[in-house]
Amino acid sequence: MYFFVNDYNSVGYPEILDALKNCIDEKNPGYGIDSHSQRACKLIKTALENENIDIYFLPGGTSANIIGATAGMRQQDSIISAKSGHIEGHEAGSIEACGLKIETIPTEDGKLSKELIKNFHEQFKTEYMTVPKKVYISNTTEVGTLYKKEELKEIYDYCKENNLYLFIDGARMAAALASDKCDYSLKDLTKLCDIFYLGGTKAGLLFSEALVVVNEDLKKDLKNLIKQKGTMLAKGFIAGIMWERVFEEKDFYLKGSKKAYKMAKVLAKGITNQGYNLAYPFESNQIFVLLDENQVKKWQKIAKFEITGEKESKKIARLVTTFRTTEEEVKNFLKEI
Amino acid sequence: MYFFVNDYNSVGYPEILDALKNCIDEKNPGYGIDSHSQRACKLIKTALENENIDIYFLPGGTSANIIGATAGMRQQDSIISAKSGHIEGHEAGSIEACGLKIETIPTEDGKLSKELIKNFHEQFKTEYMTVPKKVYISNTTEVGTLYKKEELKEIYDYCKENNLYLFIDGARMAAALASDKCDYSLKDLTKLCDIFYLGGTKAGLLFSEALVVVNEDLKKDLKNLIKQKGTMLAKGFIAGIMWERVFEEKDFYLKGSKKAYKMAKVLAKGITNQGYNLAYPFESNQIFVLLDENQVKKWQKIAKFEITGEKESKKIARLVTTFRTTEEEVKNFLKEI
Amino acid sequence: MYFFVNDYNSVGYPEILDALKNCIDEKNPGYGIDSHSQRACKLIKTALENENIDIYFLPGGTSANIIGATAGMRQQDSIISAKSGHIEGHEAGSIEACGLKIETIPTEDGKLSKELIKNFHEQFKTEYMTVPKKVYISNTTEVGTLYKKEELKEIYDYCKENNLYLFIDGARMAAALASDKCDYSLKDLTKLCDIFYLGGTKAGLLFSEALVVVNEDLKKDLKNLIKQKGTMLAKGFIAGIMWERVFEEKDFYLKGSKKAYKMAKVLAKGITNQGYNLAYPFESNQIFVLLDENQVKKWQKIAKFEITGEKESKKIARLVTTFRTTEEEVKNFLKEI
Amino acid sequence: MYFFVNDYNSVGYPEILDALKNCIDEKNPGYGIDSHSQRACKLIKTALENENIDIYFLPGGTSANIIGATAGMRQQDSIISAKSGHIEGHEAGSIEACGLKIETIPTEDGKLSKELIKNFHEQFKTEYMTVPKKVYISNTTEVGTLYKKEELKEIYDYCKENNLYLFIDGARMAAALASDKCDYSLKDLTKLCDIFYLGGTKAGLLFSEALVVVNEDLKKDLKNLIKQKGTMLAKGFIAGIMWERVFEEKDFYLKGSKKAYKMAKVLAKGITNQGYNLAYPFESNQIFVLLDENQVKKWQKIAKFEITGEKESKKIARLVTTFRTTEEEVKNFLKEI
Repeated sequence: MYFFVNDYNSVGYPEILDALKNCIDEKNPGYGIDSHSQRACKLIKTALENENIDIYFLPGGTSANIIGATAGMRQQDSIISAKSGHIEGHEAGSIEACGLKIETIPTEDGKLSKELIKNFHEQFKTEYMTVPKKVYISNTTEVGTLYKKEELKEIYDYCKENNLYLFIDGARMAAALASDKCDYSLKDLTKLCDIFYLGGTKAGLLFSEALVVVNEDLKKDLKNLIKQKGTMLAKGFIAGIMWERVFEEKDFYLKGSKKAYKMAKVLAKGITNQGYNLAYPFESNQIFVLLDENQVKKWQKIAKFEITGEKESKKIARLVTTFRTTEEEVKNFLKEI
Repeated sequence: MYFFVNDYNSVGYPEILDALKNCIDEKNPGYGIDSHSQRACKLIKTALENENIDIYFLPGGTSANIIGATAGMRQQDSIISAKSGHIEGHEAGSIEACGLKIETIPTEDGKLSKELIKNFHEQFKTEYMTVPKKVYISNTTEVGTLYKKEELKEIYDYCKENNLYLFIDGARMAAALASDKCDYSLKDLTKLCDIFYLGGTKAGLLFSEALVVVNEDLKKDLKNLIKQKGTMLAKGFIAGIMWERVFEEKDFYLKGSKKAYKMAKVLAKGITNQGYNLAYPFESNQIFVLLDENQVKKWQKIAKFEITGEKESKKIARLVTTFRTTEEEVKNFLKEI
Repeated sequence: MYFFVNDYNSVGYPEILDALKNCIDEKNPGYGIDSHSQRACKLIKTALENENIDIYFLPGGTSANIIGATAGMRQQDSIISAKSGHIEGHEAGSIEACGLKIETIPTEDGKLSKELIKNFHEQFKTEYMTVPKKVYISNTTEVGTLYKKEELKEIYDYCKENNLYLFIDGARMAAALASDKCDYSLKDLTKLCDIFYLGGTKAGLLFSEALVVVNEDLKKDLKNLIKQKGTMLAKGFIAGIMWERVFEEKDFYLKGSKKAYKMAKVLAKGITNQGYNLAYPFESNQIFVLLDENQVKKWQKIAKFEITGEKESKKIARLVTTFRTTEEEVKNFLKEI
Repeated sequence: MYFFVNDYNSVGYPEILDALKNCIDEKNPGYGIDSHSQRACKLIKTALENENIDIYFLPGGTSANIIGATAGMRQQDSIISAKSGHIEGHEAGSIEACGLKIETIPTEDGKLSKELIKNFHEQFKTEYMTVPKKVYISNTTEVGTLYKKEELKEIYDYCKENNLYLFIDGARMAAALASDKCDYSLKDLTKLCDIFYLGGTKAGLLFSEALVVVNEDLKKDLKNLIKQKGTMLAKGFIAGIMWERVFEEKDFYLKGSKKAYKMAKVLAKGITNQGYNLAYPFESNQIFVLLDENQVKKWQKIAKFEITGEKESKKIARLVTTFRTTEEEVKNFLKEI
């Protein structure tokens, strides 16, 4: 049985577990003030080529989204997101539970653009609407697409000119940076938004996302917000040890994601070569294939994957590769379909 | 330098890390539906001698408190807590951030009683007050004391008769159960409240608390609440593996805590024998000692610990033991003070 | 200049002011426990032919929607509404500010149906979505349409079978009941939903909506919720005096709305006779006319009205009649366009 | 039966009703953009001797407190209040329902001081506490006392130096300004805090409080917040007409309150002359008298009033005078007790 269900199905990279084992006899203070967390922050700052940022290690994607979304918001403020944004339909109302409305824009491919944001934003002029104060985008998106540098720049410029914060959900930032289609790298990220996170859960850690705060406004009292939302781990040093391990070795952060992307590329090419159509452009380790009912049944006999919806009267099958996907698996799967 | 700062300063029990390593080649589904999580739940149900409960593994104490506090609450409902309750002063307004008011009762020793609750609860009769709907207690408490079985029974009976849920914060439940003063055991817990959790962070796990839901009302749609509050880890199987390891070995859950208690007992006795007074009765692995300014300075030269407040014009020094505290350390510390 | 802007542009019916004047020397207790409020409740119960309901007088539409939407809701619960629902786009995020997500369904004419609700509701099956717990509809709707008795019955039946509450926003319930198209009357309302309100602001009162609670679950502790949301007026007796005046005279509640409907009918007929198309079916005192840019300009020279959006490349002009709209005005306006 | 229950038991000043009647044939736009509201704002600005303020007319005290408390707040922020503050114990958790924690200080007489605030505020230094961002005081207080100009100045100076907003609940501001003990007047108020309101409900209006926003930060997007909290009345012009009437006649705002104070003075003097003790200093139209059980019974036979609590083993009886309390009533009551 081939396994293309998701990219968070393994405990993590062996190196991460080893790093934890190496520290088992230490006594560390709690709540992220330990030396591992501090060194990890330093290493990430170096990789991002920006010393003037704040970094926090949060337990997971939803909690990172909660902090990213609520930071710096007043009660009348709202968040602009693609209708397909993870915070809108996949987190059980987490943002609304914090009192904030998400104002949504329909998109073709999961991506917002300066144009889409501008046209939408200009409608918010009266007291009976919310006050948009932040734009949320995910990279890669929920449908595997990714933003180009110029697209991010245009969006961020619009945000800065219009009193909006830009927040990038980076649960799959490693998948974005590992893609051939990506024309920027780690060191560009802090110039392209106000706040974002580097996903760890989907990049070989046991858990944890590294939240990076660029904008001074959002830095203020953020620790209190992190504590309030239940997203500050008592043993913060465990996240610190993991992130330290990741960033103390050059290029280690993207290593697994690059492997996953390479396999995805082979897989996507093989699938389209056989005449299948993709629901969205292939750009990262998630491939969305249009299948009819019979094809779905056939595929399900040999592989595990999710059906995420429908398009053009066909089902959308999502295949996800990981650092553990092998070329052999992919080739055999391609033969069998 | 002796280290009595807290009981969450180590990565965890070596056995826990080994269990994770053993599973490193597996592919597990996410969000807690994996076989490890399922087996862990089964083992815990057996240990608690109750099949009719729901169990969820949450990242940490604050997040477990958020779920325990918000479950089953309407907007006009409030939570009764001791003024010293962790949710009141130590979680940065986490419960209020969910829209709920905490109604507080001052206590001598961090413990609520049926009498205290009743007298307080009876005042809530008008529309300009909140509607108390849940009682929050912590066990052990924030000042190291613990509830007797009869005390819990009385409180729970009052709750049941008065349409209140009883929620026990069990971040240090292992410390409570490991104490000589405790006259109940794991198997009694589901008869003594509606919802509680077994702390893992302070009982040798890397992270995670096991939330146990007894009351049918609170079980409904709880997964959605857990997801909403950002407290459902994508790699839920990691918590599953850890809890499975803990409960597949008889008495393993309390092993470390019993060691910690034993050391605390020697420590407390030694301290009081030297004429120091305790701020609260010694009942668990936290010892609160009254010190004057000079004594504080002297102690700080040889040991790390927290000052948690003042009482009777003296400082309160908190000493916490863990499963790694040795008899030698304790004896040497006692000699030096 | 003809005035078709809205139906809340006058202080109120003269009879209402007279009633207030008559009570100017009284001393009444506050917060709605006065004899006027009590008698008003009794009169409304009689008009609704249901003694087993609770009635509260709230300041306005938004506040009535807040209470109607939040009553009986847990934190993971959500509200199903038409995308055009007033609570979704016209109340500045009021429901989300209470922590609740609105799950929206696009509609043609502002009306939900059993079918629409069922198809939508059936998608909510996983923990990463909210738990729909209430359906919100408005009657008349935001586009002037109204529900038939059978439609309401079908929706309410679906709700009852599926553990959903049905809440009707009745800011324009008088306009609905006054319409020729309406096949039910005041006495039917409590059989058709769990909670609703009778609009007063748009039915001749200075302010105030009468919230009617049918479902026992929602009745519990509702006064506390009303107080909490800032919607309990200290001088509750003023609303009591107004509602008492309205319901102590037979048919007085609908008198003004019937006049408004009559004028709207003449107006709508005249407009369509002249070849204009309506954006939505004419069913109540709000008429939505499709106009091109030139027509808009022309009309704006002689009348005040709102442009509410676009449809089929035309602007939608909303004309609203009130109890003070005269036949002469309507006829002259029709002549001039 | 003498009536000393509260100061909001009458419909309002006859002049107010007359003003409404005079406007009964007008057609006004909604939501406070009408000419009456605009003129009322202008008149109030003149009375306050400050053109650079924003003014909004809200339905009542709780709603004004909700806006005053939530304006400009981020999610991690909290409000400092006296334990006796109205928002803490008398509004059913309204502030917490907006996600904000109230951090309370016990007081002798319902008044905060710079010293109390400073000592309390200095404790908030860690991430596990909230971030105090606003101070709430009420004037007159819940126990009838009032602030001196110097006291307000000291508090406000501390707030400005420490990044705190100062919000004054002015539900009984007229009572404060009408008192002999008050050493400031309307024109001083905008120099003494960031945001406050002039109570109307307890100063002869049918309803409505005039919220005055001084601080630029708090002015931003406040209309959206007002709409969101359900505190923007559709017929905003009704509040406009009432406030216009009040402020178009010199000294009219305080006229009724001065009468009430005069009567309270006679009453307080008469009571203390007979040997009764007051629970709090007499400073405004609320008098709090210490009574034993027998005295309570005796008084209740001849008068209506509230028992608000206990002090020194005696009950506290609250007597409130209004603009309709007559000297004859007071004298006869004094004779009978």
